[in-house]
Amino acid sequence: MVKERDKQRVASEEIYREVQEADEGKTRRAWDRYLDASLGLRDYWYPAFFSQELQDGATRSETICGERIYFKRVKGKVYGIEDRCPHRGVAFSARPECYTTNTTTCWLHGFTFDVRDGKLTTVLTETDSALEGKLHVKTYPTYERYATVFVWIGDGEPVPPEHDMLPTFMRENLIVKPLVRVKIRCNWRMAAENGFDPGHLYGHRNWAWAKRYAAMPLGTQPLDKSDSIVIDTPGKPKGLLVQNRGSTWVNTIKDGDEVAEVYNPALDPTNPPPFEQKLYPDTFGCFLPCGLDVAGFPRPGLYHWEWYVPIDENHHMYTILQGGEGATAEQREEFLREHEEYLSEAIFRPDGMQPEGFNNFDPFGRQEINQSYMREDWWHRERMYKPDYAIIQWRTLVAKHARGIQKWGNWQPKMPDEKWDVVFYTRGNTNSNLPK
Amino acid sequence: MVKERDKQRVASEEIYREVQEADEGKTRRAWDRYLDASLGLRDYWYPAFFSQELQDGATRSETICGERIYFKRVKGKVYGIEDRCPHRGVAFSARPECYTTNTTTCWLHGFTFDVRDGKLTTVLTETDSALEGKLHVKTYPTYERYATVFVWIGDGEPVPPEHDMLPTFMRENLIVKPLVRVKIRCNWRMAAENGFDPGHLYGHRNWAWAKRYAAMPLGTQPLDKSDSIVIDTPGKPKGLLVQNRGSTWVNTIKDGDEVAEVYNPALDPTNPPPFEQKLYPDTFGCFLPCGLDVAGFPRPGLYHWEWYVPIDENHHMYTILQGGEGATAEQREEFLREHEEYLSEAIFRPDGMQPEGFNNFDPFGRQEINQSYMREDWWHRERMYKPDYAIIQWRTLVAKHARGIQKWGNWQPKMPDEKWDVVFYTRGNTNSNLPK
Amino acid sequence: MVKERDKQRVASEEIYREVQEADEGKTRRAWDRYLDASLGLRDYWYPAFFSQELQDGATRSETICGERIYFKRVKGKVYGIEDRCPHRGVAFSARPECYTTNTTTCWLHGFTFDVRDGKLTTVLTETDSALEGKLHVKTYPTYERYATVFVWIGDGEPVPPEHDMLPTFMRENLIVKPLVRVKIRCNWRMAAENGFDPGHLYGHRNWAWAKRYAAMPLGTQPLDKSDSIVIDTPGKPKGLLVQNRGSTWVNTIKDGDEVAEVYNPALDPTNPPPFEQKLYPDTFGCFLPCGLDVAGFPRPGLYHWEWYVPIDENHHMYTILQGGEGATAEQREEFLREHEEYLSEAIFRPDGMQPEGFNNFDPFGRQEINQSYMREDWWHRERMYKPDYAIIQWRTLVAKHARGIQKWGNWQPKMPDEKWDVVFYTRGNTNSNLPK
Repeated sequence: MVKERDKQRVASEEIYREVQEADEGKTRRAWDRYLDASLGLRDYWYPAFFSQELQDGATRSETICGERIYFKRVKGKVYGIEDRCPHRGVAFSARPECYTTNTTTCWLHGFTFDVRDGKLTTVLTETDSALEGKLHVKTYPTYERYATVFVWIGDGEPVPPEHDMLPTFMRENLIVKPLVRVKIRCNWRMAAENGFDPGHLYGHRNWAWAKRYAAMPLGTQPLDKSDSIVIDTPGKPKGLLVQNRGSTWVNTIKDGDEVAEVYNPALDPTNPPPFEQKLYPDTFGCFLPCGLDVAGFPRPGLYHWEWYVPIDENHHMYTILQGGEGATAEQREEFLREHEEYLSEAIFRPDGMQPEGFNNFDPFGRQEINQSYMREDWWHRERMYKPDYAIIQWRTLVAKHARGIQKWGNWQPKMPDEKWDVVFYTRGNTNSNLPK
Repeated sequence: MVKERDKQRVASEEIYREVQEADEGKTRRAWDRYLDASLGLRDYWYPAFFSQELQDGATRSETICGERIYFKRVKGKVYGIEDRCPHRGVAFSARPECYTTNTTTCWLHGFTFDVRDGKLTTVLTETDSALEGKLHVKTYPTYERYATVFVWIGDGEPVPPEHDMLPTFMRENLIVKPLVRVKIRCNWRMAAENGFDPGHLYGHRNWAWAKRYAAMPLGTQPLDKSDSIVIDTPGKPKGLLVQNRGSTWVNTIKDGDEVAEVYNPALDPTNPPPFEQKLYPDTFGCFLPCGLDVAGFPRPGLYHWEWYVPIDENHHMYTILQGGEGATAEQREEFLREHEEYLSEAIFRPDGMQPEGFNNFDPFGRQEINQSYMREDWWHRERMYKPDYAIIQWRTLVAKHARGIQKWGNWQPKMPDEKWDVVFYTRGNTNSNLPK
Repeated sequence: MVKERDKQRVASEEIYREVQEADEGKTRRAWDRYLDASLGLRDYWYPAFFSQELQDGATRSETICGERIYFKRVKGKVYGIEDRCPHRGVAFSARPECYTTNTTTCWLHGFTFDVRDGKLTTVLTETDSALEGKLHVKTYPTYERYATVFVWIGDGEPVPPEHDMLPTFMRENLIVKPLVRVKIRCNWRMAAENGFDPGHLYGHRNWAWAKRYAAMPLGTQPLDKSDSIVIDTPGKPKGLLVQNRGSTWVNTIKDGDEVAEVYNPALDPTNPPPFEQKLYPDTFGCFLPCGLDVAGFPRPGLYHWEWYVPIDENHHMYTILQGGEGATAEQREEFLREHEEYLSEAIFRPDGMQPEGFNNFDPFGRQEINQSYMREDWWHRERMYKPDYAIIQWRTLVAKHARGIQKWGNWQPKMPDEKWDVVFYTRGNTNSNLPK
């Protein structure tokens, strides 16, 4: 009969072996696609901006995975086209011009496109241009849910949006509030790994709001491999649930006779929770293409969603939303009251004021990690430890399941298949009945 | 008998075929030299600065086609030498020093050169240096006309300056006023194309001064190939005259039931000029190496000259002068009055004040075009339309007739042919009669 | 019998031949290692900072030859470790954390290292981590002398520090005051050459304090090869002593009938010192890796030391200290009074105030020289003159004797030889007696 402790020992050895093999480069060979994905994953839905950022009839531009996209909201629906006029390549958004509801016009030569299908409808500077109806600009499918506009970065027919949503973001009857969208100097992958990194909790240990919500351990670690649950059901969002059962609440540095005890200031160090106490979030997962799903944070009954939307190799848009149950008017009012009073500032303060929110630490940390990984190749120099097992699982999952890898140039507009017709070019007579 | 309209149709088809072939890459093959000319054309006269910017005895430095040139005006005449001391390569202009009328001295080791022939006359830090009279710095021929100093960028004997002047700038008895020299973040070629681009008039449609001078059409287009006149007479300035006979004054966007009519606000849309009304400028041409000649703008009897002087691959010096007939004192006074009262600010306001001048739109546009062409290779992605026929003609002309293409490194000082003599090196005895 | 002048002539011809051969590329082939040393020399002691910049228990970070080093002073002694946590590569110095006297902790995951030997003592986020005692961070030997902390940049056992000290900095009973450490945009080699460049004295000719201390000549030059003394005794600091015996005090530019006389304003031009008057500094030498030793400057009895510590290819840390004889309390008081009253500001004013100190000219000059050498390849375009003979000797010396050449990546942490043990990973039981 094998005792419980022996089973744990075996499980831990297996984890450790994988960590060690990653350091030695064996595992890493399985991550090639992940290491190539500096610009993000291709053929995915990404959150582009918050619904409230685009009023009806207005336009805005965002860069996602290196692709510049120009959005216009028409009668409630958001349309996206490439933010480059196919004629001379300038950005529509440099000086947006809209003469009619469904069109937008390039400020340089008056090329006018229908944002719904990307077709050139009029060239203001050339009466009855032969290009009208022939030339087009690339269109981007969009999807709107819970105060967020998503856009499809990819080729061909998009997958159903729910394949790429964070699982709890698909729940019904929620009330959702955008918290922040801020550009951070860090590749999206280090941001995604930082989001669920079991050891980086250490950086949050002085969170001022811990007493109201919950004290954090210094870090967590897996007891066995089952603590990292890989979700790769076909036709569903793919990701990793991290449910580490081991928490280090108090730790000690011994320096000769000197001893320092380290713990979260909100914790009673003489009475820490048991090592195997499960953390409060119900779900704690990272999902493709780049989102973090934390149901039950910062307290049971609340939702916390983050996305690390790739902008270019060295920047992502840090996008946070918060939510609560919203089936009844009473629930919605309570959530909005909590959000207004302290929930928002407890999580992120874009104003730089103290005490900082829970997530203000993360952008600071990511900028440093970006330096080591993107400029000093720590992809191949990192030395992992046991809690990094979750990171290994995430990288392996992405490398295995990513639909595509974004590359610079993927989105260069292709020449349309149809040839331009050569037509008669004087004013007003394209419908005239001229002899052949 | 072929009717007029049929002739036009045939002409237009030919134009269109060339535009289409450019898009498909056939024509473009003829432009290789043009596509290589990021740094400008070599062996040409360029406007370096305005005469008033260099007083007698003073010095100034300009970078043209990547070459750093240090100018000094001596007894009225401007001399140019390379702005690099041949000894250790520092710029004379970093700390200009002139002890005598015809010399300039390097601030670092006291190497002193005669600006007239570039010869080293004295090394202040080494008594009777053997290099004196042996070492020299590259000199640049200059030419001054109508408030403008031109410099020869090239090797060997310069061509006569009038070969490279804008045609109307060579007219006699003009009165000329410099308007602006401003560094713009855009390659010189996109600036040059923008200058005569028949479709970019659209961007000028809201020009506040149109009522005083003239309403612009939304754009113009060629009726047949003869609307673009290639000037390539040997021994004369080479360039392209654009005299498009077709003007789009009013155009309409149809968006379902919605219709938007677009026109210059200074225009009566119910009574637009006829399509084939010739535009007012008498001459409207772009000439090698980089100038725009618009006689009759902004009204008949005035002259408007622009140069897009290459600085480096991503910047040009936008140089504008205005002129009028100046044979009599009365003519000169009238021109100066108009210039003072409104002509200057109607064309360009460097102060950023509103309403902006006619040409303030162009630098904005060029910066955007520079992004697409120089960073996103729209040289090979652009989709042309009929009015771009003039641009095709210009590119073909430059590729065919440019005397040379500037390259980084062309102007690196060559070792002079003469060897330095080995002479006796103690103080004051270079003329002594020592035994051989 | 050969007359004195003839001997000088022959000596000078030999010098000149070498200068000429350098220009023609022959000598230059001997400098390959020097031309490769953009990041500095490897296996040397470098001054890292002033002692007063690091109080006991405090930390600071410096970048030297591209290596980021994190220093902590413990009970008076300075320890240096690589400023990169081996786990994920972030800089300890981004948010320094020290819980105990001898350790420092990474702010991201709580990896805690003993700064004395670089060993990982604790991982705060993982109870009883298997890495403890196994992982380590690179350590840097240090040495402290006369208010300055030196660090060994290299592999293996460092040489005795006195092998790399400036000769007069090793004298006993001095009193030393740090003057400035300032980051200058210039490669270290152009800075080092500038330090002893016999011709650049020209740039100092207007030094406001010359009357109090000493007027400078416009430049100096060697009379024969023995004026440059190469010091390459084994086991001693290697360097070049420049003792040029020829000084140009007054020089004349003849420009036709115009004549300009140039001299130091503190000098009586009608009564200049003799050409062969030796300059006042007793020692004037440049030593490996990057220091300038000027005993007897700015007056006899004082010491002036400079280092041009490489930061990266385009920056060095300009480090200046001043000293005097300090055997008695009286001597020390007198030195401190002179330093306080005018010595400091006579040499360098970091405040930008006028009149500027003697050495304020040099950073200006070096930035210009950096442009020509590092961006325009004046290594191969320079045209040397006789006073540059000292520079040729210096380059040859460095190329021949440098222990190593620093390269990017040299200092990447190697995987430690020991393998991590796979151990049982639950809390508190690493000492338990579990069955094998």
